[in-house]
Amino acid sequence: MIEPIALTAGNRVRFLDQTLLPQEEVWIETTDAEVVAEAIRSLRVRGAPLIGIAAAYGLAAVAANSHASDRGALLAEIESAANILRATRPTAVNLAWAIDRMLNEINGARDADEVRLTAVREAMAIHREDVDGNKRIGKNGAELIPTGTTILTHCNAGALATGGYGTALGVIRAAHAQGKVERVLATETRPLLQGARLTAWELVADGIPASLIPDSAAGHMMNRGAIGAVVVGADRIAANGDTANKIGTYQLAVLARENGVPFYVAAPLSTIDLATASGDAIPIEERSPEEVRAIRGVKIAADGVEAINPAFDVTPNRFISAIVTNAGVAKAPYHESLAALFRSEVTARG
Amino acid sequence: MIEPIALTAGNRVRFLDQTLLPQEEVWIETTDAEVVAEAIRSLRVRGAPLIGIAAAYGLAAVAANSHASDRGALLAEIESAANILRATRPTAVNLAWAIDRMLNEINGARDADEVRLTAVREAMAIHREDVDGNKRIGKNGAELIPTGTTILTHCNAGALATGGYGTALGVIRAAHAQGKVERVLATETRPLLQGARLTAWELVADGIPASLIPDSAAGHMMNRGAIGAVVVGADRIAANGDTANKIGTYQLAVLARENGVPFYVAAPLSTIDLATASGDAIPIEERSPEEVRAIRGVKIAADGVEAINPAFDVTPNRFISAIVTNAGVAKAPYHESLAALFRSEVTARG
Repeated sequence: MIEPIALTAGNRVRFLDQTLLPQEEVWIETTDAEVVAEAIRSLRVRGAPLIGIAAAYGLAAVAANSHASDRGALLAEIESAANILRATRPTAVNLAWAIDRMLNEINGARDADEVRLTAVREAMAIHREDVDGNKRIGKNGAELIPTGTTILTHCNAGALATGGYGTALGVIRAAHAQGKVERVLATETRPLLQGARLTAWELVADGIPASLIPDSAAGHMMNRGAIGAVVVGADRIAANGDTANKIGTYQLAVLARENGVPFYVAAPLSTIDLATASGDAIPIEERSPEEVRAIRGVKIAADGVEAINPAFDVTPNRFISAIVTNAGVAKAPYHESLAALFRSEVTARG
Repeated sequence: MIEPIALTAGNRVRFLDQTLLPQEEVWIETTDAEVVAEAIRSLRVRGAPLIGIAAAYGLAAVAANSHASDRGALLAEIESAANILRATRPTAVNLAWAIDRMLNEINGARDADEVRLTAVREAMAIHREDVDGNKRIGKNGAELIPTGTTILTHCNAGALATGGYGTALGVIRAAHAQGKVERVLATETRPLLQGARLTAWELVADGIPASLIPDSAAGHMMNRGAIGAVVVGADRIAANGDTANKIGTYQLAVLARENGVPFYVAAPLSTIDLATASGDAIPIEERSPEEVRAIRGVKIAADGVEAINPAFDVTPNRFISAIVTNAGVAKAPYHESLAALFRSEVTARG
């Protein structure tokens, strides 16, 4: 199973350029926080958990490769890199979560050498914990899937969106390993086609039976009884369970309820933002209209037409059957169940 | 305003190749029913009303250009062309409706010369009645639109889908002429992008403010209160009001109801099939998976992934606020209101 990012010898961040998949598999290596930031902005590196890991590795690379011998000067360099990375994308909370966690640990280091060691160790830990957490998400989610289920997923919440294994695709991988998955339907996920390019690529590589469908065919397939469960990832989950995820998630949730299909959100605790009370407070990134007017560089729209391109939407908690996390499965009322998962996690670690 | 088809001097069918829009405006002329049939199959000519007109003109061209001097031989040629044209696409009822109407009139002709004249006259009448009917649809539908409305439409039910003026876009054109339209949101309509390529092209040409959105953004825009009405066309309307239309229509209707947005279907009486009791009996065309795996010839999907490509879906009548026709506006219960429109039309013509 692929891991789309690593810290290599020389403490360089090495990541897969996902904009070129599935045609080309190009890896980029850098020690420059601006290169990592550009990769996040342009979706070479994407997926809420992965951009958190990328930011952490970016800070580790800056720290490890800095020539600063003075603790204060090194911390200033790291802080400057953190500001660049933090400003790349607004919706996913994992980005700010990972940066805050890195800065918090680093600030406890006594001298420049310990800052470097702490940055590298903490970034590696964030990555490992994400992969391990995804396997627990998979295990927890697979229990919700009956044998013989055709699962619909949207966008890519797979190995490529995380440190490895995936959240929604983690649930699908675990359920498939248990022989429960009849087939996966992957929405193509316009405008940037993460379903067609990335999810299909992962599923074919793993030998999981998969069919691609246009985004507009999801309701029809549910209405025909062809879908037994919907499993998606998340970019930010508010304290009340409202979930920001790839544009189109909201309409899948409405259609799932209309057709009696369970709708599951799979995400690590790092995606849950208890400081955000509800979905109304989640900032929704608006991306370039050119992403809608062209597909992989080919112009598809009439000249002169405007385009609207919201990258995410918010699914109200009432449409969500369960939120599957590394710490367990939350059900409504989410305000209570999500807070309880955090308390259980602190207890387990304590 | 464009008319995408005509019968030219020499009784040749002349039509716009819509697969090349908006980049190229190529017109094809033919007297060969197989060329017309290929154009319908490959969506060079598309839209339920237009493929009916194209079939009628195809039969007229065959009749007018045949060297048969014997009535029986000429009728056999026309019948053979009718069979080819009838088999091209299964969902839109206008195709069979137009062919049946042509054959019915032609069979009443006494000799070969009268067969030719009847075929040309009847095909011209079908085209003229469609355009005139669309203007009545526009007038009837505009009455339902309040001033300042942002209207969402799906696929292309415009001049390009009809003899001219359009059904859903007919309503939009008429409402715009009355100063009621704030903006039109056009879904891009994967896989073949009729919204991005054709509807956007028509709206820009007419100077109607228009924005393109990904199919997956429609629910989000409704949920944000950005859409005041949805207006779509139809490929076949059953006696109970269940409506087959471009894939994705069903989910727009579910989302409209969820968000309290009125959902209107605009179509001529020739799209209403009283012989089909409900949507369950409407055949849904399944098209090539290659339309999903590639966009305008550019491969977008991972190698080896299957794809499902239903061209249409069925919207149950309970999601439809009104069906706007050339003969008036029908509301639930549709079984009664649609039948009444046919009776009123017969009376008006009688």
